[in-house]
Amino acid sequence: MSLNISFIGAGNLATHLAKALYEKGFFISQVYSRSTSSAKLLANYLNASYTSKLSELVDSADIYFVALKDSVLNEVLSQINFHNQLIVHCSGSLPLSVLKNYSENTGVFYPLQTFSKQRRIEFASIPVFIEANSATNEEKLLKIAQQLSGSVTVLSSEKRKKIHISAVFASNFVNHFYTISAELLKSEGIPFEVLKPLIEETAQKIQEVRPGKAQTGPAVRFDENIISSHLAALEDKGNYKMIYKLISESIFEYHKNN
Amino acid sequence: MSLNISFIGAGNLATHLAKALYEKGFFISQVYSRSTSSAKLLANYLNASYTSKLSELVDSADIYFVALKDSVLNEVLSQINFHNQLIVHCSGSLPLSVLKNYSENTGVFYPLQTFSKQRRIEFASIPVFIEANSATNEEKLLKIAQQLSGSVTVLSSEKRKKIHISAVFASNFVNHFYTISAELLKSEGIPFEVLKPLIEETAQKIQEVRPGKAQTGPAVRFDENIISSHLAALEDKGNYKMIYKLISESIFEYHKNN
Repeated sequence: MSLNISFIGAGNLATHLAKALYEKGFFISQVYSRSTSSAKLLANYLNASYTSKLSELVDSADIYFVALKDSVLNEVLSQINFHNQLIVHCSGSLPLSVLKNYSENTGVFYPLQTFSKQRRIEFASIPVFIEANSATNEEKLLKIAQQLSGSVTVLSSEKRKKIHISAVFASNFVNHFYTISAELLKSEGIPFEVLKPLIEETAQKIQEVRPGKAQTGPAVRFDENIISSHLAALEDKGNYKMIYKLISESIFEYHKNN
Repeated sequence: MSLNISFIGAGNLATHLAKALYEKGFFISQVYSRSTSSAKLLANYLNASYTSKLSELVDSADIYFVALKDSVLNEVLSQINFHNQLIVHCSGSLPLSVLKNYSENTGVFYPLQTFSKQRRIEFASIPVFIEANSATNEEKLLKIAQQLSGSVTVLSSEKRKKIHISAVFASNFVNHFYTISAELLKSEGIPFEVLKPLIEETAQKIQEVRPGKAQTGPAVRFDENIISSHLAALEDKGNYKMIYKLISESIFEYHKNN
């Protein structure tokens, strides 16, 4: 398959996806980013051309992968004249339908992972969720996705949004709790390093045991002595007390009913 | 050092600690638990005797490790006649002083990890925090701890409580978010498996990057479109909407100020 692929966006997700495609032998002709340096950095790796001007976008690509922040997607796409090539966005929360004004061929390619430029990630283990406006386009995206990942699923926009919400809890919100715990330790002069084995084991455990069953700690049994002693010791910085209370109650409620 | 050690408690923490001691050649003479089957199971592994009656507790031990729920510790210890042997509790939140009525020799041995009976854990990488009522007892506990772990620190009761609170955020609360994400997926018929690579990468990332810097997702930039679309899609089960809102605001506040 000698597809000509173009990337609109050169952020974390675009970088990981474009590199994974390139390493599987796909031809990427051009990278667009508002930031010339980001476009150039990624394009150089891919042996592609680059631009920071939408007017210089090549119109010869068969597929445009759009990996932009949700909030700017419409603004960017409305400035481009597509000729019904396949346009694919990579957003968890935006429905497929946001693309319908721009082309007769549209799709979604959503890799469920947290991407940072400095981290190397094995794309093969990332679940990819696909959606398209026709069987032909779905087939095209499936073929591409299956070359990158061992876990590819066709999924509706609505269900994809639910996956995105669950990912916000399991990754963004989890990481914020790592941040809060680091802040609490910092105020006592204790290095964050002491929590690393615990964080690793907590994440490893649910690879084997379902998380509802893996729960430990004072909130499961609603140990009021510990909970109130912790609340008293927490400064009321950043709503930490309120968060502690709400999550403890939620843990207790869940385990009372399950 | 041929110490005679006795365990009061045979739960998750007691099991892991007693086995680690036994594997390093320590002599454990007896295991007490209210549950005969738990006491027997652990004692058999340790080649120790066991009992579920406090009246049958051996008084020949040099050290008693007390690994009980905080809420029952006083009730159990007040039924025992100690002869000023070294009594050591393993609680993150209880101060050393809770032991002072029971012996002139007291200490704390707090391993910072989440323990489940079915998970094998390398004790060598677990940070252990020590406290004691005298230099001699501190020295005794340090020597024991250093044989089990490469990370041993003497720490006050007050600072240990702060570590425990940060561990509640980084482990118990984190695991509850794994539980919520599993519930959200279950209601859509999507297997929890799809989140496992994301959960693993989120935990791995902060082994290298500090968590404040690793944060991604809609809340950092307070993307109101995504946040309100997520809130609308969340059923109001288990306070999930309120949790989503509070944590998103906390993330935004933190990243505005840091």
